[in-house]
Amino acid sequence: MIPFEVRIDLKSGILNKSDRRSKRYLSDLNSYFIDTKKIESMIRKKNVLVYEVYEIVVPEELGHMMFGSSILYPGKVGSEYFLTKGHYHEKIETAEIYFCLKGEGYLVMESLEGEFLNIYMRSGSIAYVPPKWAHRTTNTGTEPFVCFYSVPATAGHDYDEIEKNGFKTTIIESEGKVKIIKKEDY
Amino acid sequence: MIPFEVRIDLKSGILNKSDRRSKRYLSDLNSYFIDTKKIESMIRKKNVLVYEVYEIVVPEELGHMMFGSSILYPGKVGSEYFLTKGHYHEKIETAEIYFCLKGEGYLVMESLEGEFLNIYMRSGSIAYVPPKWAHRTTNTGTEPFVCFYSVPATAGHDYDEIEKNGFKTTIIESEGKVKIIKKEDY
Repeated sequence: MIPFEVRIDLKSGILNKSDRRSKRYLSDLNSYFIDTKKIESMIRKKNVLVYEVYEIVVPEELGHMMFGSSILYPGKVGSEYFLTKGHYHEKIETAEIYFCLKGEGYLVMESLEGEFLNIYMRSGSIAYVPPKWAHRTTNTGTEPFVCFYSVPATAGHDYDEIEKNGFKTTIIESEGKVKIIKKEDY
Repeated sequence: MIPFEVRIDLKSGILNKSDRRSKRYLSDLNSYFIDTKKIESMIRKKNVLVYEVYEIVVPEELGHMMFGSSILYPGKVGSEYFLTKGHYHEKIETAEIYFCLKGEGYLVMESLEGEFLNIYMRSGSIAYVPPKWAHRTTNTGTEPFVCFYSVPATAGHDYDEIEKNGFKTTIIESEGKVKIIKKEDY
């Protein structure tokens, strides 16, 4: 395999080329927000783009690393900030690195052992998601929340657990402030 | 293991904390430049810092990734631009990602099969060094050449092969221009 280069726009997070590009609209996320009525009415009005991911694909073999960028747009569903689906890795023993280039938000994480932790990120924050921790991002700012990520190429995604049981915590605006809450307290 | 965050200064490449920090001065590199007489006289005058590496250490286990930053200062030994030692990985089947944040230079690479390739990098360039490719950076600009890197935690470094046999190519200033040359043609 031959070395290669891609270029990322450090402000927008857009790659000049990518092997996979996924876009998630409100309608792809209607089971992920607390206020299901609100999201339905928002979708009817305008099914906006919530986030997109640019992905560079390399052989899915030990020793290789996938990488790319995620761009999570600002917005809220009711009082809950826009978020990505989030996932565990299929190969649960794999870590992931998130490097925030622009904007601000949280890396929302929880472990198979039931622990949870949210890390605030802004330009220059590099977060390490150890093996066995599910992770999503939430944009609590007013501009796109742009991250570069790298992950072992064998990691894979497991979205099912999160789709079924969700994360324990989420982030809302409450009295003009960013507030991390347990969903059961909403 | 618990998730954690570090912060990188996107201009200087300095991490707000690191587990290992290495500094390489001219005297650490006297066998790496073509003009050995020139480097000896430079060291006698002032043994300047050529580069430094900030490293975040995680368990050296499959699924984890090390990361950090390298800051390669501008300068030349004779006409040859400042460079890092460069290395193969001990675990030869591991890749590495280099993400240039600031400055400009080249990622100089060659493979065990005798291929060689140099990629020009500037702010926003992300290069993929596949398994089995030795790699070093060269600063061909006038400001520090700052890169973020990530690598499988099991990769390890093999500096011996490069120290013994060097890279086939290097980068010099020739008639005011940046020029990649085969060392045998110097």
